Amino acid sequence: MANEVFETYESEVRSYCRKFTSVFQVAKGSKIWDEQGREYLDFFDGAGALNYGHNNDFIKNRVISYLQQDGIIHALDMYTGAKRDFIEYFEKNILEPKGLDYKIMFTGPTGTNAMEAAVKLARKVTGRTNVFALMGAFHGMTMGALSMTTDMASRKGAGVPLHDVTHIPAPYMFPELDTIAYMERLVTDDHSGVEMPAALVVETVQAEGGIYPLDAEWLRRAEEFCHKHGILFVVDDIQIGCGRSGNFFSFERAGIKPDIVGLSKSIGGYGLPMAIVLLKPELDIWKPGEHNGTFRGNNLAFVAAKAAIEFGLNEHIYEDVTRKGEIIREYVEKEILPLHEGLELRGLGLMWGIDFEKAAPAGTARKAVTECFNRGLIIEQAGREDCVLKMMPALTISDEELKAGLAIIKEAVKAVLS
Amino acid sequence: MANEVFETYESEVRSYCRKFTSVFQVAKGSKIWDEQGREYLDFFDGAGALNYGHNNDFIKNRVISYLQQDGIIHALDMYTGAKRDFIEYFEKNILEPKGLDYKIMFTGPTGTNAMEAAVKLARKVTGRTNVFALMGAFHGMTMGALSMTTDMASRKGAGVPLHDVTHIPAPYMFPELDTIAYMERLVTDDHSGVEMPAALVVETVQAEGGIYPLDAEWLRRAEEFCHKHGILFVVDDIQIGCGRSGNFFSFERAGIKPDIVGLSKSIGGYGLPMAIVLLKPELDIWKPGEHNGTFRGNNLAFVAAKAAIEFGLNEHIYEDVTRKGEIIREYVEKEILPLHEGLELRGLGLMWGIDFEKAAPAGTARKAVTECFNRGLIIEQAGREDCVLKMMPALTISDEELKAGLAIIKEAVKAVLS
Amino acid sequence: MANEVFETYESEVRSYCRKFTSVFQVAKGSKIWDEQGREYLDFFDGAGALNYGHNNDFIKNRVISYLQQDGIIHALDMYTGAKRDFIEYFEKNILEPKGLDYKIMFTGPTGTNAMEAAVKLARKVTGRTNVFALMGAFHGMTMGALSMTTDMASRKGAGVPLHDVTHIPAPYMFPELDTIAYMERLVTDDHSGVEMPAALVVETVQAEGGIYPLDAEWLRRAEEFCHKHGILFVVDDIQIGCGRSGNFFSFERAGIKPDIVGLSKSIGGYGLPMAIVLLKPELDIWKPGEHNGTFRGNNLAFVAAKAAIEFGLNEHIYEDVTRKGEIIREYVEKEILPLHEGLELRGLGLMWGIDFEKAAPAGTARKAVTECFNRGLIIEQAGREDCVLKMMPALTISDEELKAGLAIIKEAVKAVLS
Amino acid sequence: MANEVFETYESEVRSYCRKFTSVFQVAKGSKIWDEQGREYLDFFDGAGALNYGHNNDFIKNRVISYLQQDGIIHALDMYTGAKRDFIEYFEKNILEPKGLDYKIMFTGPTGTNAMEAAVKLARKVTGRTNVFALMGAFHGMTMGALSMTTDMASRKGAGVPLHDVTHIPAPYMFPELDTIAYMERLVTDDHSGVEMPAALVVETVQAEGGIYPLDAEWLRRAEEFCHKHGILFVVDDIQIGCGRSGNFFSFERAGIKPDIVGLSKSIGGYGLPMAIVLLKPELDIWKPGEHNGTFRGNNLAFVAAKAAIEFGLNEHIYEDVTRKGEIIREYVEKEILPLHEGLELRGLGLMWGIDFEKAAPAGTARKAVTECFNRGLIIEQAGREDCVLKMMPALTISDEELKAGLAIIKEAVKAVLS
Repeated sequence: MANEVFETYESEVRSYCRKFTSVFQVAKGSKIWDEQGREYLDFFDGAGALNYGHNNDFIKNRVISYLQQDGIIHALDMYTGAKRDFIEYFEKNILEPKGLDYKIMFTGPTGTNAMEAAVKLARKVTGRTNVFALMGAFHGMTMGALSMTTDMASRKGAGVPLHDVTHIPAPYMFPELDTIAYMERLVTDDHSGVEMPAALVVETVQAEGGIYPLDAEWLRRAEEFCHKHGILFVVDDIQIGCGRSGNFFSFERAGIKPDIVGLSKSIGGYGLPMAIVLLKPELDIWKPGEHNGTFRGNNLAFVAAKAAIEFGLNEHIYEDVTRKGEIIREYVEKEILPLHEGLELRGLGLMWGIDFEKAAPAGTARKAVTECFNRGLIIEQAGREDCVLKMMPALTISDEELKAGLAIIKEAVKAVLS
Repeated sequence: MANEVFETYESEVRSYCRKFTSVFQVAKGSKIWDEQGREYLDFFDGAGALNYGHNNDFIKNRVISYLQQDGIIHALDMYTGAKRDFIEYFEKNILEPKGLDYKIMFTGPTGTNAMEAAVKLARKVTGRTNVFALMGAFHGMTMGALSMTTDMASRKGAGVPLHDVTHIPAPYMFPELDTIAYMERLVTDDHSGVEMPAALVVETVQAEGGIYPLDAEWLRRAEEFCHKHGILFVVDDIQIGCGRSGNFFSFERAGIKPDIVGLSKSIGGYGLPMAIVLLKPELDIWKPGEHNGTFRGNNLAFVAAKAAIEFGLNEHIYEDVTRKGEIIREYVEKEILPLHEGLELRGLGLMWGIDFEKAAPAGTARKAVTECFNRGLIIEQAGREDCVLKMMPALTISDEELKAGLAIIKEAVKAVLS
Repeated sequence: MANEVFETYESEVRSYCRKFTSVFQVAKGSKIWDEQGREYLDFFDGAGALNYGHNNDFIKNRVISYLQQDGIIHALDMYTGAKRDFIEYFEKNILEPKGLDYKIMFTGPTGTNAMEAAVKLARKVTGRTNVFALMGAFHGMTMGALSMTTDMASRKGAGVPLHDVTHIPAPYMFPELDTIAYMERLVTDDHSGVEMPAALVVETVQAEGGIYPLDAEWLRRAEEFCHKHGILFVVDDIQIGCGRSGNFFSFERAGIKPDIVGLSKSIGGYGLPMAIVLLKPELDIWKPGEHNGTFRGNNLAFVAAKAAIEFGLNEHIYEDVTRKGEIIREYVEKEILPLHEGLELRGLGLMWGIDFEKAAPAGTARKAVTECFNRGLIIEQAGREDCVLKMMPALTISDEELKAGLAIIKEAVKAVLS
Repeated sequence: MANEVFETYESEVRSYCRKFTSVFQVAKGSKIWDEQGREYLDFFDGAGALNYGHNNDFIKNRVISYLQQDGIIHALDMYTGAKRDFIEYFEKNILEPKGLDYKIMFTGPTGTNAMEAAVKLARKVTGRTNVFALMGAFHGMTMGALSMTTDMASRKGAGVPLHDVTHIPAPYMFPELDTIAYMERLVTDDHSGVEMPAALVVETVQAEGGIYPLDAEWLRRAEEFCHKHGILFVVDDIQIGCGRSGNFFSFERAGIKPDIVGLSKSIGGYGLPMAIVLLKPELDIWKPGEHNGTFRGNNLAFVAAKAAIEFGLNEHIYEDVTRKGEIIREYVEKEILPLHEGLELRGLGLMWGIDFEKAAPAGTARKAVTECFNRGLIIEQAGREDCVLKMMPALTISDEELKAGLAIIKEAVKAVLS
């Protein structure tokens, strides 16, 4: 059988393959083909790592060309031309125009590694041990990041109690509670029992938590709160960054300038592993090699990363995100939400979620995932008890593909709610 | 200036670039060229990630071809043809012939991630929280792995006390102490104060610790000790694995079968980020997704990984390691050790260290690194107070290149000891 | 000088002596005399350890008689007549009439030790590691209890980060937030990041936190919440217990039956160190000696403890607490609160606090303490930034003494607010 | 039944009563009587809290007199005449003659509380978090002290992993290993994985560990090691102090001056709860109240403590300890060790242990305890798997009582080994 090799030899930890049971071979743009040649639309986007679509030709040509020239591939943190080109391009074309003054730290090429580095640095700069993270957050699966991640099944996997993080209610959880005032009380009340944190870490849109965009006003107040107390404001822009929110950085909509920003997933442009941490220059008190990792010099990813941003800028991809997002919003509001009382839509840019929690029993979103897959659409669920169907197409998706995918979702939702 | 971009925009955490100050562009086999066209021999090997040499043509062709066909690049843990090909080839051609029965877990593509997964699994299987790691060990820089890593500068970077690991003296540290008996006492003495561990984690050759091969007999006794107490025996084969020891797995020389094995670095074959954990089937109690990561499905690396092993087997690369290692050993013993009293050589396969500790002040090995670089050789130091010059060429290095590099080392050692 | 010995030889950690600068010699009932023969009224009550007054004659005679008979004084947890007498009397005259079915654990004779035992047991019974404690709480100064204590200066003294406790907002802190619903969300939301606790630990009246009685309804809902989730409901009745609330146990007013109760301070009756933990019989899964301590068999305290309760019951002391408390309430409301806008009174039974927070700068309550002392009244401050003047006379205080003390407080408050 | 009240109402955590099943009533010197009037000799000494014997008349008279005068009993850390008298007497008659310059900290009146305070202070002074404690150690049962305690059953009772302590092999455990050199390596090797500690905490004679006196030379070298690295040398003199070793402080035999000393048990003189920490004046950086506890001002114990030391000095009790110890040593060597191959004797002063480990199965010492009890002797076992019969009579025991007890032990040992 096609899947026998996996079922025999791959660990039970494998997960997505249990929903998307085909063996995939080829991919292009927003389409994937399995080995039987069946075509799938992709609203999953490699969990956010494929904002420029699968095997984007512009990037692909650069990558192949670099390989053909025997460009150095693996260089740890040695200086290379490919790295310099990326840094220079990123500084001049992304950071400078936005008035952002960051230095770049190249970490091991995974999001969790970037968040571990961010938190290490915040503790080092402030001399504090505690960190504030939001309930609903996902920041990674290695122990330092996992302490911030809130998903209980993941936390339990640690095998030891997780420490040194205080979880703050996300603003949407208790609407009656002003969570900025709450944090203010925690750090000013000399009997709160909660230590002043080194950092406040947030995703501006909680993705795994169930597609919850935080209010711009909340983000501004959070930044102000941090500045007031010498707390570093850390934005995990790993999933919602790189253009998905409608701006390159998700925090731009709030007009804030975080102290530290973690990027991964689509920063590599072509699905190649890469992660960076942006930090304000005055925070750059790292000692050489104090946080390191073998693959922090993945030069093929640097080539792809620069190409991807060139493509994004030149083709006006980032600018078109909001318009495409509106297509989703309008379609879902008009065609899907009316299908059943209690269905909710949340999101922005090109990350949207249909929440089934008030409309159907737990597990319904997961059933919808299967219904979509059976109809040729790859899409993920997220959130509390997996109750949210998460629409996250590539930024490069065509309007036709987008609409085709939405039509499938409508059919799938009908099927599971009937 | 060539390096100004880095000095302005890259974090102070950068380290190797401070020793190897050129900007590198092109690489092939055991050679690297900087942007001025200067050629360097490479005895550093990407910290062990480039066992098959830079831009190995056999692998390169497969990688380019996969890209050209629009093979799926990023697939999380979905089934793909590239992954199946790797699994099948690895099981049939590496594991089966060695009588090793392991399932494969694909983790985030960094060594530290693999070790975090290994330790999580060990805690989950045993229900214990403590872990034994050896003094001198390096297992990674994310918090769970960092708790096992022993380098003080790295540990201090954590910013919080590191917990849940008991460090056991490495066998070479106190020759009068039988460290197996020591561990036996720790776990059987009801007043040791040291909790029974979930796992004993070892590198069979400590690399960062200063190139210390552990005795095969010690490894066998360690395995026996583990079995006796239901402790999982975990081998971190990230740096010394993938053929470097003279066998594909470093533990083969001891005839043992660890319960869990971590692989990364050269498993990706081409310097592409990849990491896996091998686990005995009966330990595979993971729940789906219990440890995950966005880039655990780096299919380009899977293609390279399979190609690399094909190349290694077909070209008899692994079999030639010991012979090449003997060239190093003989040369150093004859030409370098006699240069100064107290110089010591340790190693096996193609990982060797010249220890300056008893011959010269701290810092000498680092000076030798600079002298080598000035003479066109890239080589790293390691060990306590960086006192060991670490020779780690690609497995594919030619005898001529090997000898040329050794001759440079001789000149460099002369220079620093004169 | 009188105090020179202390200033030379006693550690700087000494604290109350800095406010109450006399050297005290003799005490009786609610009065203390210093070595110059100056008399002080006592509204401090040994921080709650002297509910029956200083050197209560009824208890004193029993204690002296036991000493004269060479009754065994120190017996660890061996069986003694004195211990049996206490147990039997306590079970028959305190627990049974109230319908409370508890076994008694004798811990080391300090409150902090009782709370450490309570939390150990809760973790053992539930197999969980986390504990919920309230912001504003004080539960002791040894590391396990200190993790629950919220006072930042005390926590900082730990010298290491404190773990395994989640601090829940006390109900009075965010009136808009239903803290029971908040806890319910924490333990049912699979993305809260907060682990299901072994126990919820509360003082029914937060004393050090600033004299905040928790609503009876809140306590009932908290008990219900605990039962629903298999969380043990632990009441720290160390300061507010032993009659001070108007009932022997402070939780009686809410009609609840906590799973575990910690008692210390006045349980010893005569200021002699003693602490016990009451636990529901089904929770008694302790192994012999699993929590121990040399002075857990302080038989002189057992003699005093039984005598104290006999005295309390026979003299109807407990029944008179509410009436005396009303004297305080009426006096303060009529004579003191009107002195300045913003003064607040909180309390019940014979524990009351005048809160200066909204009326005067931080430090005012402490000044009032000094003014009281200068006028012959010993009284403590408590709460956030020490803003609460804490009135806690012995339960045996006469109405005349009570009124005399209140009159001094009025003068002191006038002095500091003028 | 006599014991029914206990069996019904007292927690299963009770332990000594399971061996010594009588209900005790009266005690005097080295004798205890149960309620049936049966007389027992006491070689247990309240686990070391009764060095001056039960109900010592000299102390008793002072205690009763203080009670009769209505001397203040409970005073937290207010100044009292009784406290001043103790401090002054202790400084002038104990510390000064020995050339020891210590300030006194009064902690909660239990040994575990003293050790928590000692470790907090060491962390505060050094800014380090790690602590070295010896394998075999017992330092208390509250969480901070329990982290240092080595007994596995006790540690398991914590319910959470215990942290921030590195356990060092006791010198007797691996005779081939120089444990001072071992510690030196741990703190100087930049790859040991073990952080520089705030303190090294030792009992100069491990009591619960199985009666292991540490060599005086080892103690001197340990002190030197500590001084070299700015590590505070902390002696837990709770059980072996107060004269039991043959000097008032157990460390006097080594001629060392620890930085911090914890005292409890017999410091209270009469079995009354008391504990103090002695600290070098330059370490006294405590903030007022930074470590506190309600019963830290147990003035009745201060009266007893001063009386006890007066008695000890005036009656030359401390000076006679070594001679009495020799009676034990000679008797056991001549009469008991020859009873069976493998029996061993260890100890000094008036703390001795007969080790059954090499002579008989685990559990034999416990059986001997029962045999002793049946013959009218109360005596404890200690050590790994409870294999040591622990002889610890009061310092005031008469030669006749001592010999009578030894004769019982001989009969008991015969009985269990036959």
